[in-house]
Amino acid sequence: MNIDVCNDLGIEYPLFAFSHCRDVVAAVSRAGGMGVLGVSRHSAAELAVDLAWIKTECRGRPFGVDLIFPSTAVPPAVDDTALPAEQVRFVRELVGRFEVPPPADTDSARLYSAHKLTTDNFVELAEVSLAADISLLVSALGSPPASVAQAARSQGVRLGALVGSPRHAEKQVEAGMDILIAQGHEAGGHVGKISSMVLVPQVVDVAGGRPVLAAGGIADGRQMAAAMALGAQGVWLGSVWLTTPESDLQPGLVRRLLAATSADTVVSRSYSGKPARLLRTPWVDAWEGRGAPAALPTPLQGQLVRDAMTSAVEHGIDDVLGTPVGQVVGMMNRQETCAGIVNRIMAEFVDAGERVAGLLSA
Amino acid sequence: MNIDVCNDLGIEYPLFAFSHCRDVVAAVSRAGGMGVLGVSRHSAAELAVDLAWIKTECRGRPFGVDLIFPSTAVPPAVDDTALPAEQVRFVRELVGRFEVPPPADTDSARLYSAHKLTTDNFVELAEVSLAADISLLVSALGSPPASVAQAARSQGVRLGALVGSPRHAEKQVEAGMDILIAQGHEAGGHVGKISSMVLVPQVVDVAGGRPVLAAGGIADGRQMAAAMALGAQGVWLGSVWLTTPESDLQPGLVRRLLAATSADTVVSRSYSGKPARLLRTPWVDAWEGRGAPAALPTPLQGQLVRDAMTSAVEHGIDDVLGTPVGQVVGMMNRQETCAGIVNRIMAEFVDAGERVAGLLSA
Repeated sequence: MNIDVCNDLGIEYPLFAFSHCRDVVAAVSRAGGMGVLGVSRHSAAELAVDLAWIKTECRGRPFGVDLIFPSTAVPPAVDDTALPAEQVRFVRELVGRFEVPPPADTDSARLYSAHKLTTDNFVELAEVSLAADISLLVSALGSPPASVAQAARSQGVRLGALVGSPRHAEKQVEAGMDILIAQGHEAGGHVGKISSMVLVPQVVDVAGGRPVLAAGGIADGRQMAAAMALGAQGVWLGSVWLTTPESDLQPGLVRRLLAATSADTVVSRSYSGKPARLLRTPWVDAWEGRGAPAALPTPLQGQLVRDAMTSAVEHGIDDVLGTPVGQVVGMMNRQETCAGIVNRIMAEFVDAGERVAGLLSA
Repeated sequence: MNIDVCNDLGIEYPLFAFSHCRDVVAAVSRAGGMGVLGVSRHSAAELAVDLAWIKTECRGRPFGVDLIFPSTAVPPAVDDTALPAEQVRFVRELVGRFEVPPPADTDSARLYSAHKLTTDNFVELAEVSLAADISLLVSALGSPPASVAQAARSQGVRLGALVGSPRHAEKQVEAGMDILIAQGHEAGGHVGKISSMVLVPQVVDVAGGRPVLAAGGIADGRQMAAAMALGAQGVWLGSVWLTTPESDLQPGLVRRLLAATSADTVVSRSYSGKPARLLRTPWVDAWEGRGAPAALPTPLQGQLVRDAMTSAVEHGIDDVLGTPVGQVVGMMNRQETCAGIVNRIMAEFVDAGERVAGLLSA
């Protein structure tokens, strides 16, 4: 499409795929969109391997990386024995209730990123990314330090940032971001409170002509057309890829996502300590129920539930196994390939756009 | 516009105004949209007077009425002395903290509708409405009894219903509604959890060709174009009228709405006992804060806070005086007339539609 963000990044469609799964990233870039790898638990060496693989698989098409630049406000992880007694007791009770055995794999540094939530670690990962021919470096939290921003600019890499409020968008404009990704309350994972319908046009108004991508609530072409009507130049999708054959999500979880409705998500601090929209599970419901203790601040909550989550993956414990996912989960009702999703959404976008155009002359 | 819902109702623009204020209702109908009077505290006699006034002011243009048909699940109001002690104590504490004197007006039957939340009362109000030449009868809760539905049909009045989930929409289709109003989480007043971007297309999918109006998150023409892209035939706006010169809202409250951002609303049960999106005030924050008791079920919560709310209106107590309002409050930054809003939104809608149409050929 002849739109700034496509021309600038050299992509066919203004459709961005956020995924922790390298297969999804490469598949969407190959299909004409842009895959963006969510980096959370990678070591520098692992990230270099994955990005080299993606580069090969993309066959010259551009791709990106999404990471965080935690502020100094994130407290350091503590020794497990220093976690507060009330919350430790509650997790022990849940582990008993849901019959979660101890995990076989106890390499906490690999299993949980709490110990890596430092600017130093993410600066290293950003440097690995910039060495791997990425075209877009997105910050899901905070802004890149000057050294990273400068290195990115010198090699023509665009900088993007997720924002959840107009105020947040103003800050990221001041920080020099090239692209703003306005993420609404209906999105999966960490979210603010303002819904996409209200957030996107206000972010466009403060973006001063910079491209804005709409994130949250987009799984079909009607929603893409709506996002463009709101003033976005493109769309950023995360949830829809979870149920594709390319995704590495557990098959039991994929089945539950395909069956879930839009009422089956909940915003909870139980995942990371920050409000995140998750698939509802008995585990999450327990944290949101009466009598549950408050979740610990980031990164302690993730550290607190690390062993239970690891074991749930190892043993496929349905009541505990969950995932961040947006309200669009209610529209994810059959398995499609990544390329199938890209092509379907673009076709539906044209249909919806023509329908709106038809109203103007009617 | 040549669109079913306009042709069927005989209106120029598919833009509906929900308001408790008869001046707003008439002004929007006269401007080519359709005003719909929210009926809550009216007696039958008061409603007859207001609807006769609206009919005259509309000069032949159609208008509608919005009310509720409470199920038997709503418990009856109780004697004030039978309200639970913990909540009564909390209100007494807040009344002290915010220096709220006793209200001068203590006619509870007029001040608060708890005592009228019965099907019998609303059947009578529906009959008064049908006798007053309305074109649309909307239910914000429940469906009209068969006698009301039949009377409406026999005189060509269309039946509409607000829905907050796809499941809810299915029920209202089964109940024979002609028009579904899909109200997203970002809306003001009583809301569900699903945002407009995700809700509207799913309601369209279950509506089987019936017109769907999008409600929640709409204050400009980009948002109207987005709603139409999602498959809606029109839009239903409530918040934007609160700050018009036609509105009867307290001037101090209007000033605060004009200054509020989209982050300044909160979903709280403190207003009525059901989750409702409200302007944030110190009063609402107190109810949502740590240590606050749970709000009472409808209609007891409204009864509990009745005197404080009445006094806040009488004395203009800013910390207590509030209103239901949607997240679009952040886009309501200057005072406009009702007709000015209708004309602006329709012009912006055309601009946004042409922008989307331009993308298709680019």
